[in-house]
Amino acid sequence: MTTIRKFAHADWPTAWQIIEPILRAGDTYSFAADISENAAQQAWVELPAATFGAEDEGGQMLGTYYLKANQPGQGAHVCNCGYMVDKAARAKGVASAMCEHSQLEARRLGFRAMQYNLVVSTNTGAVRLWQQHGFAIVGTLPGAFLHPTAGYVDAYVMFKALDQ
Amino acid sequence: MTTIRKFAHADWPTAWQIIEPILRAGDTYSFAADISENAAQQAWVELPAATFGAEDEGGQMLGTYYLKANQPGQGAHVCNCGYMVDKAARAKGVASAMCEHSQLEARRLGFRAMQYNLVVSTNTGAVRLWQQHGFAIVGTLPGAFLHPTAGYVDAYVMFKALDQ
Repeated sequence: MTTIRKFAHADWPTAWQIIEPILRAGDTYSFAADISENAAQQAWVELPAATFGAEDEGGQMLGTYYLKANQPGQGAHVCNCGYMVDKAARAKGVASAMCEHSQLEARRLGFRAMQYNLVVSTNTGAVRLWQQHGFAIVGTLPGAFLHPTAGYVDAYVMFKALDQ
Repeated sequence: MTTIRKFAHADWPTAWQIIEPILRAGDTYSFAADISENAAQQAWVELPAATFGAEDEGGQMLGTYYLKANQPGQGAHVCNCGYMVDKAARAKGVASAMCEHSQLEARRLGFRAMQYNLVVSTNTGAVRLWQQHGFAIVGTLPGAFLHPTAGYVDAYVMFKALDQ
């Protein structure tokens, strides 16, 4: 059973152990692969409207996600999320649980839609998962992601309207 | 004859006279419509990799644009630009001149492609102009822009590969 709760400042060191290897691998997110821990904390926890942690029954953190407006001003009714799951906790439904939670949270905060700006096409598991959760590929960005082994690969813009 | 040159710090007050009414109108860009002058200067001049001004033969500023990486890390080979033209200088080819200049500048800086993240669908003049300059609509974001009079309208993601 995965529980999702608001991120606390003290969660960062544990979250960083999940986040760092994913950023360093550089094959799914467009953060600078050599990003400092401090800049990562800024981007994941300080700048977003909210950050959450997913944990198991024993309180072990399994994943984390952030939620923020995708644009300011006249685009601020569309939110954006990023999700990361601990490598040791993959394929256990943690990403699904966070995706569902984030949609509820986004609705609660008044967002009308959710947009993923750069879903790497080679990350087929994520693409399929977001599709299962109702997201559509609304755009394809040709060669927009430099994959460390596959080279320049397409990235998708994925979008879901949220019922109000 | 429009000349385009690097933006100087002293250009800001003139540029702000062009930029402010466009931002306050809130019908083309997703900046907060009540953005402060200081925050606008940050966004237009300080954060981007480069900012330029377009001027006429008498040195009067007609428009301005910024150029920056659209994403960090593995997406940093795709750039993003924003363009603004003085209301009094519309339909004189200033936006076209800036668009062409920005592509040359982007190539010079090593970018492989240019992406516009949120082209408001009701801004038909801009959509047509970018298409004339080789940009394709690669995505449609349903209702992603809250237009002050038209309500929620679609926005386009537009993209162009830059020859190296």
